[in-house]
Amino acid sequence: GNAILSGYGTTIFEAMSRLAGAHNAINLGQGFPDDRGAEDVLQVAARALLEGNNQYPPMMGLPALRQAVAAHAARFYGLDVDWEREVMVTSGATEALAACLFGLIEPGDEVVLFQPLYDSYVPIIRRAGGIPRFVRLQPPGWTVDPDELAAAFSPRTKLVVLNNPLNPAAKVWSAEELRLLADQVIAHDCLAVCDEVYEHLVFDGRRHVPLMTLPGMRGRTLRIGSAGKTFSLTGWKVGYVTAAPDLLQPVAKAHQYLTFSTPPNLQAAVAYGLAKDDAYFGLLAAALEAKRDRLAAGLVSAGLPVLPSEGTYFVVADITGARGLRRGEDDADFCRRLTTDAGVAAIPVSAFYEEGAPTHLIRFCFSKQDAILDSAVMRLKEFF
Amino acid sequence: GNAILSGYGTTIFEAMSRLAGAHNAINLGQGFPDDRGAEDVLQVAARALLEGNNQYPPMMGLPALRQAVAAHAARFYGLDVDWEREVMVTSGATEALAACLFGLIEPGDEVVLFQPLYDSYVPIIRRAGGIPRFVRLQPPGWTVDPDELAAAFSPRTKLVVLNNPLNPAAKVWSAEELRLLADQVIAHDCLAVCDEVYEHLVFDGRRHVPLMTLPGMRGRTLRIGSAGKTFSLTGWKVGYVTAAPDLLQPVAKAHQYLTFSTPPNLQAAVAYGLAKDDAYFGLLAAALEAKRDRLAAGLVSAGLPVLPSEGTYFVVADITGARGLRRGEDDADFCRRLTTDAGVAAIPVSAFYEEGAPTHLIRFCFSKQDAILDSAVMRLKEFF
Ligand SMILES: CSCCC(=O)C(=O)O
Ligand SMILES: CSCCC(=O)C(=O)O
Repeated sequence: GNAILSGYGTTIFEAMSRLAGAHNAINLGQGFPDDRGAEDVLQVAARALLEGNNQYPPMMGLPALRQAVAAHAARFYGLDVDWEREVMVTSGATEALAACLFGLIEPGDEVVLFQPLYDSYVPIIRRAGGIPRFVRLQPPGWTVDPDELAAAFSPRTKLVVLNNPLNPAAKVWSAEELRLLADQVIAHDCLAVCDEVYEHLVFDGRRHVPLMTLPGMRGRTLRIGSAGKTFSLTGWKVGYVTAAPDLLQPVAKAHQYLTFSTPPNLQAAVAYGLAKDDAYFGLLAAALEAKRDRLAAGLVSAGLPVLPSEGTYFVVADITGARGLRRGEDDADFCRRLTTDAGVAAIPVSAFYEEGAPTHLIRFCFSKQDAILDSAVMRLKEFF
Repeated sequence: GNAILSGYGTTIFEAMSRLAGAHNAINLGQGFPDDRGAEDVLQVAARALLEGNNQYPPMMGLPALRQAVAAHAARFYGLDVDWEREVMVTSGATEALAACLFGLIEPGDEVVLFQPLYDSYVPIIRRAGGIPRFVRLQPPGWTVDPDELAAAFSPRTKLVVLNNPLNPAAKVWSAEELRLLADQVIAHDCLAVCDEVYEHLVFDGRRHVPLMTLPGMRGRTLRIGSAGKTFSLTGWKVGYVTAAPDLLQPVAKAHQYLTFSTPPNLQAAVAYGLAKDDAYFGLLAAALEAKRDRLAAGLVSAGLPVLPSEGTYFVVADITGARGLRRGEDDADFCRRLTTDAGVAAIPVSAFYEEGAPTHLIRFCFSKQDAILDSAVMRLKEFF
């Protein structure tokens, strides 16, 4: 097998879900909701499946969905998007990312990344011939050091990958941080690929600000969204990229050879979903905020202090002083033991690092029914 | 954009479908059926959508579908497949191919290919760092020259890509040709990636023989299938790779970062479909065989002689002596003019070549309602 890809293990999400399944553990590892998802969106998908077209949709995506993505960007962010030339549908955000990276990177290009990071970024960047340059976010606030940021950019920087809101850190990037980043991107005449799949999952009255909306960034940014998190249907794998035509075109070249297209009935349903009223999006965030509070309080009461969670499905706990932690045990070992012995699966934050990982943080997913969250906390209390 | 990918245009299928749409032409270009697809498979998909799980399925695919793929291989080809270690589900055969090529190729590896070829192979091979080595199939019989085949292999050959049945040539590889190829693969200790999406679309009593079933090839072959052509649902993008565990593992590493997974309700429906009785598969081939005959006869009567079509959705016509062909006009120009002026879209066979393309052949798709095929023929007759 290819040496770069073979060097990576099975993704931590899959590995922990398998372990959770094998041990009948409550799975607070891999990030997905355990409800049915948006009911009306499901109905539209079923109708489109039975009454609509099931042959190849256009390679760029159904016009209805591309129009809906553009309208959604206008409604929430004031962006003016030409759906015909600036929107492409992909088979999930993962494919969108792969298409951006394979489509834009030339071997030898440098790519700036923030650690912790989602685990597909670096393998694809390396496989595309790119050279990752890491910037560390410092817990517990996951703050950026401006000097470290500046040092990561060079004349060879092709692009920066930004995940906002940030998985697993549950960080929503501040306006100042975004400005700092935009300044570097503009100064180095490079691009930004923004993975914003959690755009609607932000809490405590925060508003998500796409990097694309900052002055000077409209023509330098590729913005990735996804239906999975927005409609609680993570299995659907419907994503979308929004970018200026000259940026989208090379990405479409990659997409047409990676998957070519995406099931049309799911596209039709997501088009419907993106047009839902503001209340839907508000209630989604409010429901998850309540779940965050519920699980965070439970973890604290079980003796696991938590870091702030400003968005996403996740809350990170500090295991440093946890009862039950064995001497020398790291986050990965502890997560495995929690899964097999306590019956609660979580994800070690070290899995989101290429180098210099902290070993005292673990990530819990709170997008679950309240009773499940309560059971998990009970199991943890019993175990400790 | 990346230089390799940016060098390629929008796929010919998409380009011709767009042109056909713009000119209200009958679209016999891009290969897809115009019926609803397998009705019971649609119903199972709708039920799974409304009653089943819509969150992330396992990265390797639903166990039910992987079991069905293994059972299908046993039933039709006598293959003994371990579904847990030897089957992976992908988002269509296009993603399966990309995963195989990115997962297996090391930069500098040589890849043997037959021209004409499907248009995603070479861009992905080059983007993966591979070096294509072409073998020409000689029309009208699309025969292989054994010496040319032998010369394409070298100590640097990593793998050969075989499309069987072959799009656009509508060729089903003979037992002798497969043996010749297997001998080379074994002699050079390399691999075969077999795109067999048209496995059930073979005519005149032929049987599809997977290269994987030849002596010595079980452990060297990655076999790709797809629901699109088998259930007349080309928009679903559900594919599968079958291979020995040590070959499948590196491919899974690519897959987990390219798309990660595929909509579970579609997977469940395809699992159901693959278990349909032999009559279903027989009737599918018989119906297409009749359509082949209908369109072929019509083309001939319109003055376009056709080459043999042994399988796939396609029949190739020779335009050398066509009335209406302008002096110096090649297949691509002629196809565009047929689309815009005659109202019938076809695909120039030269689009399936990297080099040395013939310019006198065009491909028609016959997986359409009889009335549509007849109208297309009528339009051609009027135009000529
Ligand atoms: C594709 S599985 C990973 C799901 C996810 O985004 C996460 O758990 O972080
Ligand atoms: C992915 S669109 C191409 C469909 C097809 O296989 C063909 O027309 O050859």
